[in-house]
Amino acid sequence: MKPNTVLDIFMENPGEYLSGEEISRRLSISRAAVWKQINKLREAGYEFDAISRRGYRLVQKPSRLNAVTLMGAMRTDVLGRQLKVLDVTTSTQEDVRRLAEEGAQEGTLVIAEEQTVGRGRFGRKWFSPPGKGIWMSLLLRPGLPLSCAPQLTLLTAVAVCRAIRSVTGVDSGIKWPNDLLVHGRKICGILLESVAEDERIRYCIAGIGIDANMTAEDYPEELRDKVSSLRLESGQLIDRESLIGAVMSELEKLYKLYLEEGFGPIAHLWEALSVTINQEVTLNTPQGPVTGYATGIDMSGALILDQDGRKTLIFSGDVQLGG
Amino acid sequence: MKPNTVLDIFMENPGEYLSGEEISRRLSISRAAVWKQINKLREAGYEFDAISRRGYRLVQKPSRLNAVTLMGAMRTDVLGRQLKVLDVTTSTQEDVRRLAEEGAQEGTLVIAEEQTVGRGRFGRKWFSPPGKGIWMSLLLRPGLPLSCAPQLTLLTAVAVCRAIRSVTGVDSGIKWPNDLLVHGRKICGILLESVAEDERIRYCIAGIGIDANMTAEDYPEELRDKVSSLRLESGQLIDRESLIGAVMSELEKLYKLYLEEGFGPIAHLWEALSVTINQEVTLNTPQGPVTGYATGIDMSGALILDQDGRKTLIFSGDVQLGG
Repeated sequence: MKPNTVLDIFMENPGEYLSGEEISRRLSISRAAVWKQINKLREAGYEFDAISRRGYRLVQKPSRLNAVTLMGAMRTDVLGRQLKVLDVTTSTQEDVRRLAEEGAQEGTLVIAEEQTVGRGRFGRKWFSPPGKGIWMSLLLRPGLPLSCAPQLTLLTAVAVCRAIRSVTGVDSGIKWPNDLLVHGRKICGILLESVAEDERIRYCIAGIGIDANMTAEDYPEELRDKVSSLRLESGQLIDRESLIGAVMSELEKLYKLYLEEGFGPIAHLWEALSVTINQEVTLNTPQGPVTGYATGIDMSGALILDQDGRKTLIFSGDVQLGG
Repeated sequence: MKPNTVLDIFMENPGEYLSGEEISRRLSISRAAVWKQINKLREAGYEFDAISRRGYRLVQKPSRLNAVTLMGAMRTDVLGRQLKVLDVTTSTQEDVRRLAEEGAQEGTLVIAEEQTVGRGRFGRKWFSPPGKGIWMSLLLRPGLPLSCAPQLTLLTAVAVCRAIRSVTGVDSGIKWPNDLLVHGRKICGILLESVAEDERIRYCIAGIGIDANMTAEDYPEELRDKVSSLRLESGQLIDRESLIGAVMSELEKLYKLYLEEGFGPIAHLWEALSVTINQEVTLNTPQGPVTGYATGIDMSGALILDQDGRKTLIFSGDVQLGG
């Protein structure tokens, strides 16, 4: 069978270097068209070695998340037991919100290979290219007062941090309230959306974005010194299914602990994993920047700042490490 | 012109009693069909006197809310300045939620003559028949931490209670957190929905349902000893447009005060209008019933219960007056 696309040619010649010239000749297309197709494949998660004079070699096909494998990887009774795996969506948060309004049950999980309008904190755009990250949203229906929502934010960060450490060995730390950093670079963002009626939570949606298998070239220029991936930090490909399974297992364990024992044990775990505590920090709050020594979190989930002996509680803000 | 409907006949004979027999003869329809049409008109807000042997007389056409009149009645800069008046909708809360997600600005107000799926607290159905009540939802974007949402719930109750007192003279009181009662019967329900990202409110929707002009017959049997209307309590027809205008004016005034001065003054006003404070109450909480002496609300908006000298804070629940 005559190859039709650049991908066909690479699939027929596993492990071999193929020059642009040869590919262009065999497909009867221009060199520029070859180069364009290879770039499209890269965007879709294929990886190529490129050596001058020898050409390109396909080294990595995109791995695709499999619902059955995922179900097996989750040691849970409730979380993730209603599962949707999508190729592409606008935002998994919006998907779960829609399901929640339709009455979806606690633990409903939506994972997408790619988000076109991924959303981060403060309405910022979240970079979520196809096939290499973990972009997912989980529905919780804790039946708690609204004042507990910030605690669930911190709980989610603890669970993801613990799962990352155990599956990948990467020593990520938590920046208040819920960013995960490695060597000062962000590898995971968490966004907890809460919908409440009066003082009672109707439901929460925990949005979790983990940069798993990105290479440096996957990031746009302006992000490269701010973010990193577990692959870059560990030097190995991450098994996304195992990691998602571990995140759900940790979350369910901590969520049960929280519902039974309250926030105390979670606060303790959070402080132990935090990179914000025991140092001078500056916070951009809605009321302007605030600087102080971060001493811990209180039982509501607020950050405790010591400002020359005076304790201030910070409920909302963006932390800059260093005074 | 030959009359086509029962309504045509009544409109051509203002103030006159018409017997069912006469109407049936003039329209060439059965007596049962006449009776059916009159019932439909009653449901749509028309009111009839019925006297045996004389027949029916049309005494009240449904009044319809007018956007221009409403705009004139609101002494506001922001609240209600984006206004939608609908004949019928499923739920004004859902309408405003959709508008909020599309980026609608603070103060956007949706009012409907009728809701087909009106929603009350704890997912209960809210009885909202056409033309006689005030069913509306208001979008707020306070940019505050999530912990402030319960305060906004109480603030809304204070504003509506004050507006009702000033426009109708009816001495309504607030049952914690936000039901308005007259002589132990509910005349207004308030539902504050909050949508938050992490610890920050993205927006709130204040749903307000006021039983304005219902007569006793408008209520289903099972509601009659639990609810009442401002018309029943005041003995006069309520000008819904004036009342909506007053609610928006009060809300804007108190909302500004709250954003400038914090919750202190609002808590003070709430306690002064409350029917829950200074008595023995039982609360149905998510953790079961709790009985105690209600002494006030704290700065977070929680109800303070004194249980044999021990103070308990109640964040969520349904109050029954009396121990």
